[in-house]
Amino acid sequence: MTQNIPDLSKIEAAHKRISSFIHKTPVFTSSIINGIAGAEIFFKCENFQRVGAFKFRGACNAVLSLSEEERKKGVATHSSGNHAQGLALAAKLNNIPAYIVMPKNAPAVKKNAVLGYGAEVIDCEATLQSREDTLEHVVKEKGAYFVHPFNDYDIIAGQATASKELIEETGKLDVIMAPVGGGGLLSGTALTVNLLSPATKVVAGEPAGADDAYHSLKAGKIIPSTNPNTIADGLLTSLGTKTFEIISKYVDEIIMVSDEEIINAMRLVWERMKIVIEPSAAVPFAALLKEKEKFQGQRVGIIISGGNVDLGKLPF
Amino acid sequence: MTQNIPDLSKIEAAHKRISSFIHKTPVFTSSIINGIAGAEIFFKCENFQRVGAFKFRGACNAVLSLSEEERKKGVATHSSGNHAQGLALAAKLNNIPAYIVMPKNAPAVKKNAVLGYGAEVIDCEATLQSREDTLEHVVKEKGAYFVHPFNDYDIIAGQATASKELIEETGKLDVIMAPVGGGGLLSGTALTVNLLSPATKVVAGEPAGADDAYHSLKAGKIIPSTNPNTIADGLLTSLGTKTFEIISKYVDEIIMVSDEEIINAMRLVWERMKIVIEPSAAVPFAALLKEKEKFQGQRVGIIISGGNVDLGKLPF
Repeated sequence: MTQNIPDLSKIEAAHKRISSFIHKTPVFTSSIINGIAGAEIFFKCENFQRVGAFKFRGACNAVLSLSEEERKKGVATHSSGNHAQGLALAAKLNNIPAYIVMPKNAPAVKKNAVLGYGAEVIDCEATLQSREDTLEHVVKEKGAYFVHPFNDYDIIAGQATASKELIEETGKLDVIMAPVGGGGLLSGTALTVNLLSPATKVVAGEPAGADDAYHSLKAGKIIPSTNPNTIADGLLTSLGTKTFEIISKYVDEIIMVSDEEIINAMRLVWERMKIVIEPSAAVPFAALLKEKEKFQGQRVGIIISGGNVDLGKLPF
Repeated sequence: MTQNIPDLSKIEAAHKRISSFIHKTPVFTSSIINGIAGAEIFFKCENFQRVGAFKFRGACNAVLSLSEEERKKGVATHSSGNHAQGLALAAKLNNIPAYIVMPKNAPAVKKNAVLGYGAEVIDCEATLQSREDTLEHVVKEKGAYFVHPFNDYDIIAGQATASKELIEETGKLDVIMAPVGGGGLLSGTALTVNLLSPATKVVAGEPAGADDAYHSLKAGKIIPSTNPNTIADGLLTSLGTKTFEIISKYVDEIIMVSDEEIINAMRLVWERMKIVIEPSAAVPFAALLKEKEKFQGQRVGIIISGGNVDLGKLPF
């Protein structure tokens, strides 16, 4: 387990470690989108990553960083989202057990996805208390290693590899943008940029309905969201201690966007670029469109975080 | 204007001619999709082509094949679909006028797309008679060159370049599949395969609600669809004389699929591959899934014909 903020050697080691497991996702551009935005945008398409989201990078790095002893006992987490799937697949590929604590009322499609990767699903009540208690019980009983979805340096180092690949492909960028929920992806992105391209700005998009990062950064301390509510369901979580520290140091700006702005940006990407992205993934592009004038004529990298949507419940 | 069935030199010349205008679209694979299908599938993603469909290849080749004299007077067609957009953009890029005859009741979004490429839209009634009369009038008045959407050897040679790129990228394939409507893409595909990889089979998917190619091939003569009706709205047209001749010679099989099978295949591609494809583009994959046992263990190329869908009217 990594005990300090990852430096360049840690991020490079993470990239090497996971490289035979992950997809090196493509970078897409669109002249029509560039025309609309007035900027030259490079979309790093983690919707094409395994399990359909960047989360696989961090989960994979965390699993591969365990000792032989730890591996035998397996990994555990509580999540009904992309982290659950990412961890389940990373565990499967390494032939170790995975225990995923999920609320009883989680959609069957999400449970089935995790079961499909061979993980064990453990039901809990739909409260944070029950999730944490159930996870603690599993960790005790199985001796499994708890892989936190974002407040973990191995996770952060894994997520950092997405922007590393982006920069290596595009060369110098003026800005790199990512969404922020718990802050794993944004922390990793900010570290990479600081280490590999310090002149590049790091700007995050955050849903107005879950705007703890914006307010935490302003206040200089963590102010968790209360009753977050947004269509960007991957960004409901508040920052953790580790991600807050990194984001405070290395992120230049957080732009808040409404659900309507998120849906419009998502629709534009689907229609013009012909790729399926989830609402959370549209947040940084929505932020760019909202404050267009800041990015005029610039080279902007955007991490498209994932593409897992319920096609039966689209907002258009 | 090309007067004979294109040979290899014509297809190569078309490819060279259009290469600086088109996108060299990527070939996508998915281990999950392969697992479901029991075959190794290479999707040639023409949904990422300019105007969102392969149609731009043929339109571009047709425009670039005109004489200087013809160019000055411009091009015309009747279409409210991808051919209209493809021709409008090809004309714009070559600074020549384009006249697109469209039914008055065509969706505003389709008219606006064509207007956005700088073409002139000429309204007609929503009958074939009115479309043809209006087009004839435009051709006479402006002296514009009528670019047929499929029954034209320059169009066919342009469409043939999609499978040429696919084969050049993947190497030997057991089967190549494409959808069939008017037959421009299928003819081009069949010619390429016959010329570059004659041992590869050519199999088409056709909607059961517009199944003229299936019946025409069986009968040995063109039997147009009467009142075709399918969600695959790019495939409503019946074969023309030129496409029928090529398809009769070089296509091995046509598999018919229901709208339900088309929707299921389309959904699978959206969900698993995270790309937006239109119903017509899902038809060959639906055909493969329907007759899976024929393709077990084979290397199959599928042309994904386009990605233009109305997100407000999805079938899921």
